[in-house]
Amino acid sequence: MPLSLLMAAKGKKEKWDSFKGRTCFKGFQQSQMAQWNRSGYFRSSGSRDVNPDLEAERQTASFSVERLTAILDGGADNTRTRRAVEAVIHSEPGFSRENQYFQSQNERYEAAVRRSVYLKEKMHQMGWTEDGPEIMYCYRALGGDLAFNIHRVFKNSILALGTDEQIAKWIPLADKYHIIGTYAQTELGHGTFLRGLETTAIFDISTQEFTLNTPKISAMKWWPGDLGRSATHAVVFAQLYIKGKCYGLHAFILQIRSLHDHSPAPGVIVGDIGPKMNFEHIDNGYLMLQNINIPRENMLSRFSQVLPDGTYVKRGSDKINYLTMIMTRVHMLWIEVIPMLLKACTIATRYSVVRRQSKLNPGDPEAKILDYQTQQQKLLPLLATAYAFHFMNAYVNEFYNKGYTEIKQENFDSLPELHALTAGIKAIITEHCTAGAEICLRACGGHGYSALSGLPLLYTKLAASCTYEGENTVLFLQTARFLVKCLAAVHSGQPIPPSAAYLSSVDSGKCQARTKMDFLKPDIYAEAYRQRATRLLGNAATKLQGLVQSGAEQHEAWNQCTVQLMQAAKAHCHYIVVKNFIDTVEKLRNEAEIQKIVKHLCDLFALHGIFSNMGDFLHAGYISGDQMDMVTASYLDLLAVIRNDAVPLVDAFDFTDESLNSALGSYDGHVYQRLYEWAQKSPTNKQMSQAYARYLKPLFQSALSKL
Amino acid sequence: MPLSLLMAAKGKKEKWDSFKGRTCFKGFQQSQMAQWNRSGYFRSSGSRDVNPDLEAERQTASFSVERLTAILDGGADNTRTRRAVEAVIHSEPGFSRENQYFQSQNERYEAAVRRSVYLKEKMHQMGWTEDGPEIMYCYRALGGDLAFNIHRVFKNSILALGTDEQIAKWIPLADKYHIIGTYAQTELGHGTFLRGLETTAIFDISTQEFTLNTPKISAMKWWPGDLGRSATHAVVFAQLYIKGKCYGLHAFILQIRSLHDHSPAPGVIVGDIGPKMNFEHIDNGYLMLQNINIPRENMLSRFSQVLPDGTYVKRGSDKINYLTMIMTRVHMLWIEVIPMLLKACTIATRYSVVRRQSKLNPGDPEAKILDYQTQQQKLLPLLATAYAFHFMNAYVNEFYNKGYTEIKQENFDSLPELHALTAGIKAIITEHCTAGAEICLRACGGHGYSALSGLPLLYTKLAASCTYEGENTVLFLQTARFLVKCLAAVHSGQPIPPSAAYLSSVDSGKCQARTKMDFLKPDIYAEAYRQRATRLLGNAATKLQGLVQSGAEQHEAWNQCTVQLMQAAKAHCHYIVVKNFIDTVEKLRNEAEIQKIVKHLCDLFALHGIFSNMGDFLHAGYISGDQMDMVTASYLDLLAVIRNDAVPLVDAFDFTDESLNSALGSYDGHVYQRLYEWAQKSPTNKQMSQAYARYLKPLFQSALSKL
Repeated sequence: MPLSLLMAAKGKKEKWDSFKGRTCFKGFQQSQMAQWNRSGYFRSSGSRDVNPDLEAERQTASFSVERLTAILDGGADNTRTRRAVEAVIHSEPGFSRENQYFQSQNERYEAAVRRSVYLKEKMHQMGWTEDGPEIMYCYRALGGDLAFNIHRVFKNSILALGTDEQIAKWIPLADKYHIIGTYAQTELGHGTFLRGLETTAIFDISTQEFTLNTPKISAMKWWPGDLGRSATHAVVFAQLYIKGKCYGLHAFILQIRSLHDHSPAPGVIVGDIGPKMNFEHIDNGYLMLQNINIPRENMLSRFSQVLPDGTYVKRGSDKINYLTMIMTRVHMLWIEVIPMLLKACTIATRYSVVRRQSKLNPGDPEAKILDYQTQQQKLLPLLATAYAFHFMNAYVNEFYNKGYTEIKQENFDSLPELHALTAGIKAIITEHCTAGAEICLRACGGHGYSALSGLPLLYTKLAASCTYEGENTVLFLQTARFLVKCLAAVHSGQPIPPSAAYLSSVDSGKCQARTKMDFLKPDIYAEAYRQRATRLLGNAATKLQGLVQSGAEQHEAWNQCTVQLMQAAKAHCHYIVVKNFIDTVEKLRNEAEIQKIVKHLCDLFALHGIFSNMGDFLHAGYISGDQMDMVTASYLDLLAVIRNDAVPLVDAFDFTDESLNSALGSYDGHVYQRLYEWAQKSPTNKQMSQAYARYLKPLFQSALSKL
Repeated sequence: MPLSLLMAAKGKKEKWDSFKGRTCFKGFQQSQMAQWNRSGYFRSSGSRDVNPDLEAERQTASFSVERLTAILDGGADNTRTRRAVEAVIHSEPGFSRENQYFQSQNERYEAAVRRSVYLKEKMHQMGWTEDGPEIMYCYRALGGDLAFNIHRVFKNSILALGTDEQIAKWIPLADKYHIIGTYAQTELGHGTFLRGLETTAIFDISTQEFTLNTPKISAMKWWPGDLGRSATHAVVFAQLYIKGKCYGLHAFILQIRSLHDHSPAPGVIVGDIGPKMNFEHIDNGYLMLQNINIPRENMLSRFSQVLPDGTYVKRGSDKINYLTMIMTRVHMLWIEVIPMLLKACTIATRYSVVRRQSKLNPGDPEAKILDYQTQQQKLLPLLATAYAFHFMNAYVNEFYNKGYTEIKQENFDSLPELHALTAGIKAIITEHCTAGAEICLRACGGHGYSALSGLPLLYTKLAASCTYEGENTVLFLQTARFLVKCLAAVHSGQPIPPSAAYLSSVDSGKCQARTKMDFLKPDIYAEAYRQRATRLLGNAATKLQGLVQSGAEQHEAWNQCTVQLMQAAKAHCHYIVVKNFIDTVEKLRNEAEIQKIVKHLCDLFALHGIFSNMGDFLHAGYISGDQMDMVTASYLDLLAVIRNDAVPLVDAFDFTDESLNSALGSYDGHVYQRLYEWAQKSPTNKQMSQAYARYLKPLFQSALSKL
């Protein structure tokens, strides 16, 4: 019974001398709810009927939602497996995320650890393996609210950089959570620029040990996940010194907390970095080391080793280490980032056909807000973006797998392209997903701002993804550097990596579209994107060359071009996403209904991109002002077309209510009931605030004599 | 002593049989900190010395920071008053916001109530009045983290809509916080469209009472501030019924909680709506009413009254009520919204000269991140925007005061313009401030994402401002509707309100700029903005007219043009802000140094706007592609110029460290020390997590035998 009801019941017996009105309190809530229920205004969110405004949207789908779901899952078999996994996860209270929005940082951390440990047990019990398909579905079902993500990076770094003996020693322990590791790279004063890291590891021949130190406050490890409260071990990156000479960054494995009682190891200062904008379920931590001695064999030594006499030996290429970083990026897009945009779209779209506001026509009832063009303009391009990124992800995975096979065979030719592509795609996807979640949040008005909508959590998690695993500006510039090299290769007749091959196409003159319908032809818009990317890169490269030729230092010249190089890198990534969307549509040729709606989404994604970046396309006159009016007209037409399938298109993402965890986004559309019921569970309704007794009561007493 | 240290001390005595390395623990932290201190790496944040990287920025200011501060304050006298008020506020522990980032929703609410009650006492004690200048400075010093904001709206609504008797009865009680009121307008299912509100108030002649009811769940009052846990009274908006006839929305005052013990009044269900993305210091609440009877005199009756026999009497025009809404918007921009962008700029700019990362030139030390063009591009246009909005605010206030005087004299002629201007300006300012705070947050990398940076709080508060006091899309469209009327007036030769007078200027052909220097001429860029605003409005209006002429219903035609009408409204507001910035620069003619730097900011604001909205200016060929390249060049040149004064320009905002409440943004620039020291205070470092004992300990024990 919420506080308000308790108080109301109590109030019944009170002498309301200060209250002038007569009252009529007859078990108010119960009777009222029952009455609303009968009249259809209030349904318990447990009942299975669906809000008629949402139900109506499902009756008119132009395609089979179940079929599209199967395609998105990569086959109906996958859909079945996914649903089976979700059913297991949602049936176990140990995995519950109920009350998540009411939890403190401490509680969220504890719940994440609980879910992760349960998950390990459950996987064992179900026979799900670490590299099987089920684990991805578990992540999806749990919305990534798990601990030990960096523990996985800890493991991967040992697998990539460790010798066979090191792998044999540490991996079995890590696999079973008998130790929890963190990946301690980032320092308080150092992030992106790894060469600047300041932690030191000095080799002492007499003891055959490395001594690790944190020489300055800026060298304190800061941010590593799972470090603050969980980790027993760490892979620590430090500058290796032997006989006074620095050999650069190397990875060392060390124990940081007791396995007996979890107390920090002597010489170790470790703790939690405190509250963040989110990610409170993760214990990001700090770590200071003073004269920590570890044996020689604790340097990860697959690619370089220190011999007992202090000789430094390098073996093979450690370029393969880039793969860990690339893999982490590919993985995060698939598991964490893109699904969050899909969820945000699901929540905002369903809410937008349940919420009614103002009248479109004077005599009508209030209109569904999705019927307003401005609401369509907010949500439907995002829906198209969600599909674009989902399909892009398949492309990136394929690209990665191909590169991975080659690199494992010590063929590093594709590494620069793989790195540049995943860097830029990570940046563009996290950027658009973050902006998209914010648009969804604001498109739900005040209710989007309630934590109970689920949207604040999605937004704040996505905002972090723009920085972690590579800050986006840095990543875009890495892509730009690759593209500048590709352009130089074009000019000198060298071979060009496939993803940049379009740079060598001949200039196509002006856009050939003559009517707004022409802008629904993929050839037309793909060429516009290609032309834009080529032009922006060309301009930036020309400026760069000009500055160098007129005497500027290479580094300074680069810096003066970075704003334009960023634009070029973004245009390149945008083109790749559009091109891949077009290719995906073509592959759906045996699915007429679905191909049709997906083609609409592809058109919308492309035309919205032109509409929103008009200047890039108009600048050199490739698209004229009149043609841009056609783009606008086609774009606005598409909004009205896709609006009719908006709910089926988000239904096809097939998120469970538990996974969405949103009072606004549930399948049955009973948003107001859920907001009310969930609010009852808030701690703010569970106790009388101290504020009343301490500050307000004395004031209110003064009014009694005057009213 | 933080947990980690306690544990480390404990660990000293432990037999580290599972830990292979030898250790060397000698009062680590104390000695380490002392050593860092001597070497200058670690300074207590209490010391008064300034980080040399920040200090250096202040040595080269091109202008007097103190003078600019005085100008921003509206005179050196105001600066003195402000600083005196801030000194009082910061000296009282009762006002402290320390530990704010670690508090739960309950704790933040309680602290806000505490500060508000203390503030009332302090104002009385100091002789500061409700309409004096000090209260604004108190708000500024406290970052708006106060309760009872809606109590002020409650009061204002009684002052605007109440009779003299009603004012005499309620206002003295409200003034002293002897009652706390809320303004219960928004309902769970109804926001913007007031006519759609569903709460009913039925007049019963026999009892001379109104009976108030919440007939459906969607009619529940939802969101009103101060309602969830504080309010004793409410102004409730309900549909008035007399003898079965609906007379529309009216305001009623009723008691909702006991003044004895704070229990809800009989028939009242009231509570808190739970966690939000922020605003946890405010108890936004819900309210259901069943058969609440209140006497006839509890309807606010300045403009309409129900006589004892049920006769409904309307008196004068209640248009004056719009003023309350307009005043609230003007007030929020000044007190809440714009200062948050100024703070975000201060934090991010100071951090960007303290943070060093990567090398600009191979031989140099790592560069300050503000020396990167991409960082300049993120922050410096925002700094220009902060100045633009600060100056815009002065204009809006003047405009409002003039309108207010006229309207008080029952001359409502300026009301439509005042409404349209404040609506659009509220929308454009909240939009840009929100986006700006997000850019600042992300420009500080991972540390920006830490709650301790202060930036997440600024962002999430600003995000709310896009929705409250008028949802921005709705507001822009109201401005657009006004502009369409103005355009019609131009065509029919009617007089045009001053803020839209530019619509009647003759077409100026093409942009006259021939070099990049020409784009530093205010006439040149102002005309470009004017041309853009006129063109976008003209196009939207033409489309609208065309649709109506070809038979579309007026409402449907309007809906189909809203995307373009929004663009037109934004372009209009953008032009007004640019124009006002230009006028402000002109007025600084007696302040040569300051005029020079403010002129740079004005140029940057204008050129960044063209650069970022290129398509709008290129579309009709007003600016050519070649000219756009000049804009880009001038824009990038300006970044390098303003970069040199960036820190003095944020210093001039003159925020105290207490008001900024940021580990990254303090005046002394000791960011790493503060992050470390503040993290120690986090509850995550104050207790051993249950997660260890419950879930991890059993697992870790298994490793002991294997290591």
